[in-house]
Amino acid sequence: MSDLTHFNDQGRARMVDVSDKDETVRTAVARSSILVNETIHRQISEGTNKKGDVFAVAQVAGIMAAKNTPQIIPMCHPLPLKGIDISFKWNVDEEAGHYEVLLEASVKTKGQTGVEMEALTAASAAALTIYDMCKAAGKEMIIGPTMLLEKTGGKSGDYKRD
Amino acid sequence: MSDLTHFNDQGRARMVDVSDKDETVRTAVARSSILVNETIHRQISEGTNKKGDVFAVAQVAGIMAAKNTPQIIPMCHPLPLKGIDISFKWNVDEEAGHYEVLLEASVKTKGQTGVEMEALTAASAAALTIYDMCKAAGKEMIIGPTMLLEKTGGKSGDYKRD
Amino acid sequence: MSDLTHFNDQGRARMVDVSDKDETVRTAVARSSILVNETIHRQISEGTNKKGDVFAVAQVAGIMAAKNTPQIIPMCHPLPLKGIDISFKWNVDEEAGHYEVLLEASVKTKGQTGVEMEALTAASAAALTIYDMCKAAGKEMIIGPTMLLEKTGGKSGDYKRD
Amino acid sequence: MSDLTHFNDQGRARMVDVSDKDETVRTAVARSSILVNETIHRQISEGTNKKGDVFAVAQVAGIMAAKNTPQIIPMCHPLPLKGIDISFKWNVDEEAGHYEVLLEASVKTKGQTGVEMEALTAASAAALTIYDMCKAAGKEMIIGPTMLLEKTGGKSGDYKRD
Amino acid sequence: MSDLTHFNDQGRARMVDVSDKDETVRTAVARSSILVNETIHRQISEGTNKKGDVFAVAQVAGIMAAKNTPQIIPMCHPLPLKGIDISFKWNVDEEAGHYEVLLEASVKTKGQTGVEMEALTAASAAALTIYDMCKAAGKEMIIGPTMLLEKTGGKSGDYKRD
Amino acid sequence: MSDLTHFNDQGRARMVDVSDKDETVRTAVARSSILVNETIHRQISEGTNKKGDVFAVAQVAGIMAAKNTPQIIPMCHPLPLKGIDISFKWNVDEEAGHYEVLLEASVKTKGQTGVEMEALTAASAAALTIYDMCKAAGKEMIIGPTMLLEKTGGKSGDYKRD
Repeated sequence: MSDLTHFNDQGRARMVDVSDKDETVRTAVARSSILVNETIHRQISEGTNKKGDVFAVAQVAGIMAAKNTPQIIPMCHPLPLKGIDISFKWNVDEEAGHYEVLLEASVKTKGQTGVEMEALTAASAAALTIYDMCKAAGKEMIIGPTMLLEKTGGKSGDYKRD
Repeated sequence: MSDLTHFNDQGRARMVDVSDKDETVRTAVARSSILVNETIHRQISEGTNKKGDVFAVAQVAGIMAAKNTPQIIPMCHPLPLKGIDISFKWNVDEEAGHYEVLLEASVKTKGQTGVEMEALTAASAAALTIYDMCKAAGKEMIIGPTMLLEKTGGKSGDYKRD
Repeated sequence: MSDLTHFNDQGRARMVDVSDKDETVRTAVARSSILVNETIHRQISEGTNKKGDVFAVAQVAGIMAAKNTPQIIPMCHPLPLKGIDISFKWNVDEEAGHYEVLLEASVKTKGQTGVEMEALTAASAAALTIYDMCKAAGKEMIIGPTMLLEKTGGKSGDYKRD
Repeated sequence: MSDLTHFNDQGRARMVDVSDKDETVRTAVARSSILVNETIHRQISEGTNKKGDVFAVAQVAGIMAAKNTPQIIPMCHPLPLKGIDISFKWNVDEEAGHYEVLLEASVKTKGQTGVEMEALTAASAAALTIYDMCKAAGKEMIIGPTMLLEKTGGKSGDYKRD
Repeated sequence: MSDLTHFNDQGRARMVDVSDKDETVRTAVARSSILVNETIHRQISEGTNKKGDVFAVAQVAGIMAAKNTPQIIPMCHPLPLKGIDISFKWNVDEEAGHYEVLLEASVKTKGQTGVEMEALTAASAAALTIYDMCKAAGKEMIIGPTMLLEKTGGKSGDYKRD
Repeated sequence: MSDLTHFNDQGRARMVDVSDKDETVRTAVARSSILVNETIHRQISEGTNKKGDVFAVAQVAGIMAAKNTPQIIPMCHPLPLKGIDISFKWNVDEEAGHYEVLLEASVKTKGQTGVEMEALTAASAAALTIYDMCKAAGKEMIIGPTMLLEKTGGKSGDYKRD
């Protein structure tokens, strides 16, 4: 059974030594979401159809957060990311009054550790940005669940959420 | 009905002018959570009882993220935060195999805008840090839902989630 | 005649003490520009009319750079900015083959120093971002001239470029 | 004709995937400039001859900005820069009352994308720093034009401004 | 006897709430030092007399580190610093082969917490920068002792090292 | 005799070109220390035995500072660090009233320059964090001496302090 490798002999956190790992192409895809009210749904949708694009700002926020992940997550290794993308999809059931944005963040690198944290951080930052830009119309929005959908590359093998 | 105030005449995002708002004490409390497996629950719990304290690292990550919120959330105003705290609580049902960490982040400032985003960002970063430190023992962890519990101060009045 | 106040007795740079200055509302507007070729003009324009909005990304870059100015400009005082906006305008003469984007960045604060540098930095970062996103279609783009258009507030009085 | 590769299928910005590109040595040289008045010219020149060296501060600002480019330019890839240098040259015509500082920033890396943006950002930050340190003696300074002088390395080949 | 106020009820670190403290002018002066060999002493001194000024770079590093202190020291409050200065003095005894740079960093703000950490961080960063720029000529340099010389302002009163 | 390689022909600082150096595994270990009073010694020790762990926060601060070294030390090359660890040891002589924390920071990378600065910066930031968290119980603490204990890898060979 695996132990918490992030701790040293003194029981305190360290950034694990990965210098022996292989440098391979690694990808990760994470999902988050944000549940909004009808007003916010209409505002974002209309904005997107015209020019005021909440998702465009969230996109930039997510991409920059992916690059800043080692500054946000203390034990996360710095990695020269090679590609980052984020997509948005509405999941709406008007009758049920359900208005939800699904976000997917994809990150790619060639390095000695995986990019799960970068994908998860990108998705979280994008969702938080949507919250920030829409909170004047309703503070009850709910972010998440946020989770890893899949990863490839590295010794621990590929992962795909069922 | 309120519009999306974060957009200018050209339909592009701006950081809203708050220079006319009152400078008052403002607080916000946000919650996030992370669902883990039994192994991770045991590792964190044992570590906490000894010295290897996952939550101690998550605490620092959340506090630093609160201070960095204006760099993470593009349209968020910079604020000289006056106090930040984060607490952790286990919500466990062993029979149901349910192991969940509840996180609450409290932020306080005296300024012209609220600190909802700082509290939400702190809670998210703390949860992401737990994910990072435990992912070797299970990548299926689920972060969130993440939400605002309450806020005080400012013209829009207090908010308390039902 | 004024001396270079940014130097101490040893002739080395310091961040000037402004603690005796009045805390007043201060604004600044700066302009930059970027000269592009016909292809880039068409790509940006079409993107803007559809959804791929180069200016939306440049907008976010400029706003975040304004907030980061004290980290970019060494002797610049940190200030809690209250409002930031950026606008874009095409200056096109098709016959002359002249395609130019004019950018204006407006920044507002209430503090003890002015926000000229924040406005100039925002305009510069927004122009650099346009360069970055369009450089695959022509590296000969020219940024600037970049200049202060006006400022208000503070002891040195208002300034307006002729 | 090349398209705007910085956009995904949803028409929103992404950080382009470069993981298939070759890792080669890449260099870029960018130029900026700043037009100052006679007083500022004398202050900088005398400072340089003695000890208060405006250019020394601008140099540090430019080098640090080059390293921070992926935080300033949203879609720019992070790269482990290998060398950065900046040089300054006066272009003065006393009779015409023309006092101009020319700045050249050179950046080198070994990586999968070019360093044009790092060179342009370094030159811009250095020029902005000169503005900041001299603005007490005249806010009418003009920064730029800022442009790429040359680049080498990478699939798109070398570039040299005529 | 004072307790460790930086811990919450769960025994984990928090950023202490200072919103009830008075906003007053606060200053702090910290000292560090770096012991170098004869070669480095000569190189720095000659450089300073000509143009290559190690201390000029260390000066900028210290000033920027003072502004970044809340990002470097996790529980440190963000403060809008009003003035920062650093000075350098040689303490040399050629017969004893003793070559030491003394650094003093002064920081001033108007706020609800003191600036001891900003002064100590500035002095440390400046000393580290000297190490970095001279390490090719001798890695045995010794930094420190680093200490607070004095502080003024705030409820806990003034402090002056004997 | 080696010159100051950090200066260009104009006598101003540059980030030295290292693109011709070999990419090898490199390690560095640095030491710092902090001298505290009896009260602080007791507070930290009791906290460590329970849950309020000053060293846990200092550990995170040191690890994040190692990753931020190129933003703190102006001429320092950015490097993708592979492992970082910090350990703490009490050096106590109760009769002499001597209470000192010894800190050791170890950093590892695979790259074209060494990691001495990262190790020294990590040790310094960890010591500064201890100062910050304990300063309410005594501002007379002394940080350092801070020094390099050893390094391996790179053309200049290994170094070990006597």
